[in-house]
Amino acid sequence: MTSTVSVRTSQDEAQIREVIADQATALWARDAVRLVAHYAPDVVQYDLAPPLRHLGPDVRDAAARQSWMDGFAGPIGLTIRDLEVTVGGDIAYCHSLNKLAATPHEAPEGFEMWFRATVCLRKVDGTWWITHEHTSTPFYMDGSFLTATDLQP
Amino acid sequence: MTSTVSVRTSQDEAQIREVIADQATALWARDAVRLVAHYAPDVVQYDLAPPLRHLGPDVRDAAARQSWMDGFAGPIGLTIRDLEVTVGGDIAYCHSLNKLAATPHEAPEGFEMWFRATVCLRKVDGTWWITHEHTSTPFYMDGSFLTATDLQP
Repeated sequence: MTSTVSVRTSQDEAQIREVIADQATALWARDAVRLVAHYAPDVVQYDLAPPLRHLGPDVRDAAARQSWMDGFAGPIGLTIRDLEVTVGGDIAYCHSLNKLAATPHEAPEGFEMWFRATVCLRKVDGTWWITHEHTSTPFYMDGSFLTATDLQP
Repeated sequence: MTSTVSVRTSQDEAQIREVIADQATALWARDAVRLVAHYAPDVVQYDLAPPLRHLGPDVRDAAARQSWMDGFAGPIGLTIRDLEVTVGGDIAYCHSLNKLAATPHEAPEGFEMWFRATVCLRKVDGTWWITHEHTSTPFYMDGSFLTATDLQP
């Protein structure tokens, strides 16, 4: 019994890592439809930019996401580091340090930025869906209130 | 069987809400020992301030946390809004919008700030421990890189 649970958990973890890798591939390909396909209808997202919270229809709005992607020249690179996946029954949570590397049309020198990512998922009918996503950078508490985009893990 | 699972989940959710409420009480009382008592030894924390990540011994360092708390005059208020708790087996994840209200000794006018919180937990021997915590504010992508401390939910 323990062995069966263990195998199932291991398969679940592999499927979840595929979901996260597929989103990185979608970013690289600037394919918004592929990116948003992993979000559950009731997903709650805390994003890098305001507002505080985005709800399902906003998060799954492929046209809006495509418009953001089209602001970049070439691929949008996402490096995922120290990804840990924890599975319990039909829910899971993951966290990692990610590096975004991209070139906005108006800034041809490009930029790189490390940020933190927490992704929570639920399995429905054998498929893992992202139900919650929280990405962020910390900010300097030195009175400047500047976001810390220069940190390295 | 379904009913038993449902009752257990409901008890788990109640226990998790108590953990989160107890941390708010600990902040109010500026009791660092009480605050850090809920963190698992291997907790991974993404905090409001740099660095990108804090690991277990840092997060559970009550003396360091007490020193931060003692920088404030009077209670540290934490309002928790829209808290959703999802439980699966012996793991759980929660997210909420929180308001911090406090008065630093050097800024007697005080401040209030909304931020996002994601808390992940694991149950060991009947007790829920915080294994991951991610708190953040978004930042303005208008070229200023200022953190958005003025948002309202």
